[in-house]
Amino acid sequence: MQFRELMVQNRTRRKFDESRPVDIQILVDLVELTRFIPSGKNMQPLKYIAVADKVQCDAIFPLLGWAGYLKDWKGPADGERPTGYIVVMLDRNLADTPGCDHGIASQSIMLGAVEKGLGGCIIGTVNRKKLSRMLDLSENFDILLVLALGVPAQDVVVESLPSDGSIQYWSGNDGKHHVPKRGLDDLLVGCYPEKK
Amino acid sequence: MQFRELMVQNRTRRKFDESRPVDIQILVDLVELTRFIPSGKNMQPLKYIAVADKVQCDAIFPLLGWAGYLKDWKGPADGERPTGYIVVMLDRNLADTPGCDHGIASQSIMLGAVEKGLGGCIIGTVNRKKLSRMLDLSENFDILLVLALGVPAQDVVVESLPSDGSIQYWSGNDGKHHVPKRGLDDLLVGCYPEKK
Repeated sequence: MQFRELMVQNRTRRKFDESRPVDIQILVDLVELTRFIPSGKNMQPLKYIAVADKVQCDAIFPLLGWAGYLKDWKGPADGERPTGYIVVMLDRNLADTPGCDHGIASQSIMLGAVEKGLGGCIIGTVNRKKLSRMLDLSENFDILLVLALGVPAQDVVVESLPSDGSIQYWSGNDGKHHVPKRGLDDLLVGCYPEKK
Repeated sequence: MQFRELMVQNRTRRKFDESRPVDIQILVDLVELTRFIPSGKNMQPLKYIAVADKVQCDAIFPLLGWAGYLKDWKGPADGERPTGYIVVMLDRNLADTPGCDHGIASQSIMLGAVEKGLGGCIIGTVNRKKLSRMLDLSENFDILLVLALGVPAQDVVVESLPSDGSIQYWSGNDGKHHVPKRGLDDLLVGCYPEKK
């Protein structure tokens, strides 16, 4: 697959086919990918926990915040929930800050997941205190993000921003999730030499 | 190319073949890729400037810090310098913080660059004041990172950490750049169910 195609297919997914669980070995392979990411000062301060166990997944799910712009939707229903998680942590014994390494790592994992037929959501709204306790984390681990993964069960459509410029995503009557994204001319504010 | 192969090929590069300049259209295409990245709250607060013009590249180069661990090396020599740059900025009119979006964006651009036969370096040590002035940035733009790009001219070898656990990269007498990376067992601190 061409890389651009992988980027386009890598949409944030919040509904999954729970009847098709994620294999733990795939999650392990996705963590292994992060061996090869660039890291500020090559510190490599990120650590990971992979979860595909049903009981653990059920315990993690209520500790996550889902889709802030969908006020009437509390997250995926039973049967549509993630079947795997990768918890991304900073090991404070290695560095005081992750810089943007967790963005680099999460995007790498998500792109790798898409190639395997999975999809997911990078979640920053996490009950870190409860999740730390549940995972029995030692004090040097700070939870940065939780990556929710599974076999996607909803189409996602990328579209241009509406005339009012809103970046809020929305669920359509077509059952699809619609996501406004800025165009290239909005992102690229300078170009030397000028683009044609 | 399989995604893991792309991840392995995507090594930080600091020496380039300056006789093979980067086409500005490739940099524009790499910025276009970032339309498709996930963004916290879908804010999409990042903006970009692409530079392939030789005069501008020469002006940007001295504003960057190179390879902190190589004390006797001040950066690539004339003839080995980057021939393109992408400046990654936060537009503070859109968000107060980038979260880790700049990590997501930079990794996406770098992976896209590798597919096109390029390579580069995500640089955080930047003389932001001078670069802002040079690029005549308005006040709402904060420079986050500079991505230096070109046709790679040095082999990079990933290896295990040495026995003393040092993560400092080094230049070998073989002309190659050696980068110690932690192993999977070091990164994955929990796995449910246990991996085989």
